[in-house]
Amino acid sequence: MESLFLNPQHSNAGLPDVSPLIGKMEMAGNQIRFGILGCAEIARKVSRAISLSPNATLFAIGSRSIDKAKRYAAENSFPETVKVYGSYEAVLDDPSVDAVYLPLPTSMHVPWAVLAAEKKKHVLLEKPTALHVSLLDRILQACESNGVQFMDGTMWMHNPRTHKMREMLSNPSLFGELKAVHSIFGFCANSDFLENDIRVKPDLDGLGALGDAGWYCIRSILWAANYELPKTVTALQGPVFNKAGVVLSCGASLLWEDGKSATFQCSFLMNLTMDLTVIGTKGTLHLNDFIIPFNETSAGFSLASESGFTELVTGWVPLPSNHVVTTDLPQEAFMVKEFASLVGNIRDSASKPDAKWPTISRKTQLVLDTVKASIDQGCVSIDIVS
Amino acid sequence: MESLFLNPQHSNAGLPDVSPLIGKMEMAGNQIRFGILGCAEIARKVSRAISLSPNATLFAIGSRSIDKAKRYAAENSFPETVKVYGSYEAVLDDPSVDAVYLPLPTSMHVPWAVLAAEKKKHVLLEKPTALHVSLLDRILQACESNGVQFMDGTMWMHNPRTHKMREMLSNPSLFGELKAVHSIFGFCANSDFLENDIRVKPDLDGLGALGDAGWYCIRSILWAANYELPKTVTALQGPVFNKAGVVLSCGASLLWEDGKSATFQCSFLMNLTMDLTVIGTKGTLHLNDFIIPFNETSAGFSLASESGFTELVTGWVPLPSNHVVTTDLPQEAFMVKEFASLVGNIRDSASKPDAKWPTISRKTQLVLDTVKASIDQGCVSIDIVS
Repeated sequence: MESLFLNPQHSNAGLPDVSPLIGKMEMAGNQIRFGILGCAEIARKVSRAISLSPNATLFAIGSRSIDKAKRYAAENSFPETVKVYGSYEAVLDDPSVDAVYLPLPTSMHVPWAVLAAEKKKHVLLEKPTALHVSLLDRILQACESNGVQFMDGTMWMHNPRTHKMREMLSNPSLFGELKAVHSIFGFCANSDFLENDIRVKPDLDGLGALGDAGWYCIRSILWAANYELPKTVTALQGPVFNKAGVVLSCGASLLWEDGKSATFQCSFLMNLTMDLTVIGTKGTLHLNDFIIPFNETSAGFSLASESGFTELVTGWVPLPSNHVVTTDLPQEAFMVKEFASLVGNIRDSASKPDAKWPTISRKTQLVLDTVKASIDQGCVSIDIVS
Repeated sequence: MESLFLNPQHSNAGLPDVSPLIGKMEMAGNQIRFGILGCAEIARKVSRAISLSPNATLFAIGSRSIDKAKRYAAENSFPETVKVYGSYEAVLDDPSVDAVYLPLPTSMHVPWAVLAAEKKKHVLLEKPTALHVSLLDRILQACESNGVQFMDGTMWMHNPRTHKMREMLSNPSLFGELKAVHSIFGFCANSDFLENDIRVKPDLDGLGALGDAGWYCIRSILWAANYELPKTVTALQGPVFNKAGVVLSCGASLLWEDGKSATFQCSFLMNLTMDLTVIGTKGTLHLNDFIIPFNETSAGFSLASESGFTELVTGWVPLPSNHVVTTDLPQEAFMVKEFASLVGNIRDSASKPDAKWPTISRKTQLVLDTVKASIDQGCVSIDIVS
């Protein structure tokens, strides 16, 4: 494996070379020092994001095997200043670590996130946050009672495109009132994934495609609805399970008190698709790459607003408009930057943790759990109990 | 109202000027002579399409009021050669009329389409074809027993783009096997429409938004599935009705025996949206203007095939490809041309009517009826009985 940190061609074209940032740990004492628990594949991306974020430093990594941790650090060309530990506890016990990133299997989230909070480490937790909202609540309570920031790892939320879209959806003359949201996240897992990945193992990530891919769909729907919870959730007929009973593909429809509605589909069994469609009384927003933008340095969407037809209904007037938002950092670095900023406020300015992020994590998990309950009960409609 | 036929600026840019075609009736004796029953708004578009189609001639129009018919013919600058009748019967009794276009309210389809067939007129029928498949069957039986061609007025089926998309979906290396279809057609009806349009009147178009907008969604789903009927249909929670009980907004999920699935949403209560997403194991097709292309002279779609990510999952490789199909006729003229070609084969070459078009009309109606039944029964799942 080639160098991730020292080889600029591994940064996507147009993004800053990472190597000049390696020294920023020494330069800026007020940076947030991150520890990573575990050598997950996704941690390669997030460790790069930590290094790219101007207010964060990759400080330590811990694995249950010191050899594995050393190999991982070498393979990903972590700076030599990064501490390498042979246990998760050692990272949590390092007094210089401000915050931890937890890319562990979902079944391990409660013990390690709770322990991290108890050790006063701020918690950036991979999604899905938990196997059930009652378990997430243990984590959130530990974070709250220990005064540490919680955030889940939903990267697309932090892309500047997302803020631009929010601005447009919030403009009543452009978009009107929200009526419907449709979200799809599927990818075609290969046979190795379907056999061996943690996301198909009931004891590791028992929520399967719903927890992994459906998380993003549900979050996108809640985001579009300004985090208003739906009243009722109904799984779509035909969820697909593996032999161990883990969901490989499913969907649901959501209905709000005021009549607005949403559907989503998530799957490990289809070509890569990442659609988000948000429809209001006056506008329609489309993007087909809402989770991972097609390109790292710019991200687009289209908005049709007060669309109508030519006189004989032979074309659209006006045409939808295309919008592109360019970025100087990848979206995961914006996530790290936002999280580190909140952590810095707490550490350096005695601020309280920001309640926004745990609140939306909890709502996402709650809807996800209700979809799972609907699937388990034969796709009946279930009212959300918050 | 300005001239539709004589004023070339009313043709969309790039399309042929209609005026030279007005004389083609005299030039080509083998053209199919169309009569139109009723002065519907949509007939303005279709009468233009008849004039643009190289093998068709606008021959007669009939209304229950001769004054209305004359005014309509004048307002739309119909050539003076077009016969104007004060009844529908008169059009059907004109021995020179080969085929009729019926843009009447759905509740009037059975008597007039059946009578047309009995008078040996080929039938181009607006959608929805009927208020129930049992009523459509009366029309189809009349067409079959009288040896006349039947086709419904689903224009987008005839756009060259549709054939190009079919070609790509049929390529196993590009698209793989079909897994899911998502279709949306909504538009924001104004208060006049919601009060007065035939599509909100239980005695005229009692299927409301399901019959009008949902027809296209269901057809697009069946088209994507190569007209294989789903096994089960389940209406989505939350259909919206007007005071008279007509559907203004609804949706459904469809499930096939082999596990593939589809959802659609149709509505009179949202911004104009015409989405079709077709997802296979290897490919994803997107278009946001499947019913009325954004522009009349070219129509696009995107196809992502075997999509994957960059090494750190920071972008897509390969990117979806965009495809544009240019056309020398509007899609409704291709519809007329195809219909007239089949009619010509029957009239001039003693061919049999093509069974493809009535068959797919019937399947569309059958699925639509089943969605309606599911709505009426509280969104239960209903097996399709063909």
